[in-house]
Amino acid sequence: MGRRSTGNVPELVERARAGDPRAVARLISLVEDESPLLREVMAGLVAYAGDAQVVGITGPPGVGKSTSTSALVGELRRAGKRVGVLAVDPSSPFSGGALLGDRVRMQDHALDPEVYIRSMASRGHLGGLSWTTPQALRVLDAAGCDVILVETVGVGQSEVEIAGLADTTLVLMAPGMGDGIQAAKAGILEIGDVYVINKADRDGADQVRRELRSMLALAERQEGAWAPPIVKTVASRAEGLDEVVAEIDRHHAWLAESGELAARRASRARDEIEAIAVTALRARWGDVHGRGELDELAAAVVAGDCDPYAAADVLLESFAD
Amino acid sequence: MGRRSTGNVPELVERARAGDPRAVARLISLVEDESPLLREVMAGLVAYAGDAQVVGITGPPGVGKSTSTSALVGELRRAGKRVGVLAVDPSSPFSGGALLGDRVRMQDHALDPEVYIRSMASRGHLGGLSWTTPQALRVLDAAGCDVILVETVGVGQSEVEIAGLADTTLVLMAPGMGDGIQAAKAGILEIGDVYVINKADRDGADQVRRELRSMLALAERQEGAWAPPIVKTVASRAEGLDEVVAEIDRHHAWLAESGELAARRASRARDEIEAIAVTALRARWGDVHGRGELDELAAAVVAGDCDPYAAADVLLESFAD
Repeated sequence: MGRRSTGNVPELVERARAGDPRAVARLISLVEDESPLLREVMAGLVAYAGDAQVVGITGPPGVGKSTSTSALVGELRRAGKRVGVLAVDPSSPFSGGALLGDRVRMQDHALDPEVYIRSMASRGHLGGLSWTTPQALRVLDAAGCDVILVETVGVGQSEVEIAGLADTTLVLMAPGMGDGIQAAKAGILEIGDVYVINKADRDGADQVRRELRSMLALAERQEGAWAPPIVKTVASRAEGLDEVVAEIDRHHAWLAESGELAARRASRARDEIEAIAVTALRARWGDVHGRGELDELAAAVVAGDCDPYAAADVLLESFAD
Repeated sequence: MGRRSTGNVPELVERARAGDPRAVARLISLVEDESPLLREVMAGLVAYAGDAQVVGITGPPGVGKSTSTSALVGELRRAGKRVGVLAVDPSSPFSGGALLGDRVRMQDHALDPEVYIRSMASRGHLGGLSWTTPQALRVLDAAGCDVILVETVGVGQSEVEIAGLADTTLVLMAPGMGDGIQAAKAGILEIGDVYVINKADRDGADQVRRELRSMLALAERQEGAWAPPIVKTVASRAEGLDEVVAEIDRHHAWLAESGELAARRASRARDEIEAIAVTALRARWGDVHGRGELDELAAAVVAGDCDPYAAADVLLESFAD
């Protein structure tokens, strides 16, 4: 957590605010590396962030998330928007590697100076996604992106976290996904703001829509709550994306009007602050006490001499000293 | 975190230790509900846990995880083992609902008194999986299970967390998974102790094996490290499970001999203690300060008046008072 300032942070921050893509890339690398310089970076950026619309894109593997993201970028560019794309890959917590196929499909926009594309590995521990992603969003936001698309790979926990970070969450489905879509449905019915049935030119698209519609109809919604629309697309031919953008905008207007936008952003900031605080505490438990105390407590729990709650009490007491 | 003892906890703990399935089920419900009674439950169980072999089972949707789990239970039962099955469903963080299909397939063992089967929703926040799953494992362990199978649904973060909890992690694959298996591969090559190619009677099984073998060969391993074997199965016909069990046992023997078993269990206990401590802190930030302080700090971050690191500092200082 030290201020290991190298002197070039203020300059990097300045250049990122002016929209320099290399400075943006460098700052997101600092986020990805959980650099100690981030404190200074965020202090320099926080006043310039807050205007971007954050759109999460999720769904099971094979529904065409990357193709859809790419087509959506094209649609937003036609509307004159500056666009950021953050591809968060929670299935690669160790290697930091993005999936090659995804990146290739995004090359349509690689040379557009008004589009920032960045893939980012999410670390696999407490506070990983919820800490680093908001900071990467802040970098793109402060760099002047009007819309930031956050694409996540995979089914499970990560998509729920993405939903917590986004203003609007798109959930993608496609016909013919078999088990995958069944497994996915269980988790995604409560996080989608807009549902997109991609590959809608294939057999079974109408059936997916019917199933989805009846499952959504069963969900209990409060008076005045947002009713998620279902849009059909063929992303590979850029069909239907205009309607997706229209629904994103309609949802954004609803968010702003209902007060939900402010609530979501406050909640995102709370999570980020907590994640930073927790990370700082864990570092202290590990470092200040030389890993000794936590190790001893863990050994006592493994041996059956101490229950984990009593061990946690000891840890917290030692911190309050 | 209070000791809201109802008086029946000691009796429940006693009955669970004696192997009463209803008491086991009740205690796991307390874990799932994050009940304040857990402190007392864990204190009563911790001395009786530590003997069970914990086996994680993961892989992308559609590879036959539940069928494989069921077949593995059958194989372990033939060897006279008492078996616990914990199906953790991170794709259902809200509803708490398990996927019907999975449960149906497990009905083969529903009437066997030496098999505990339990599905558990994992909560979708900091410390969710890493806090509740070890406690559910402790319940099954103290109830006398020789082997506990932890099955997780989905691809992504959750499987990495399961790998952190298990002594041995089985990674399942199957031919013909297309994008799903490609997406999965990126994340699972570093977590599998035993790889299982299920549906090995189908076209493409040998190709999956070849690909997997060459990817595993590329991974850097230290001298004396475990080299993960690849086993082929047809779980629907209970073929190959004897070899899976043999590899699990061989891995377990390696773990014990190399000191890795003790290291994994200590690491699991550390994570559990930390997760409990962090949850207690978050409750204090929320409750003691009446949600007020964190809310104010979050509002300042959203407004751009304060960076999240400075906000975290304020939160931590207020705790140290």
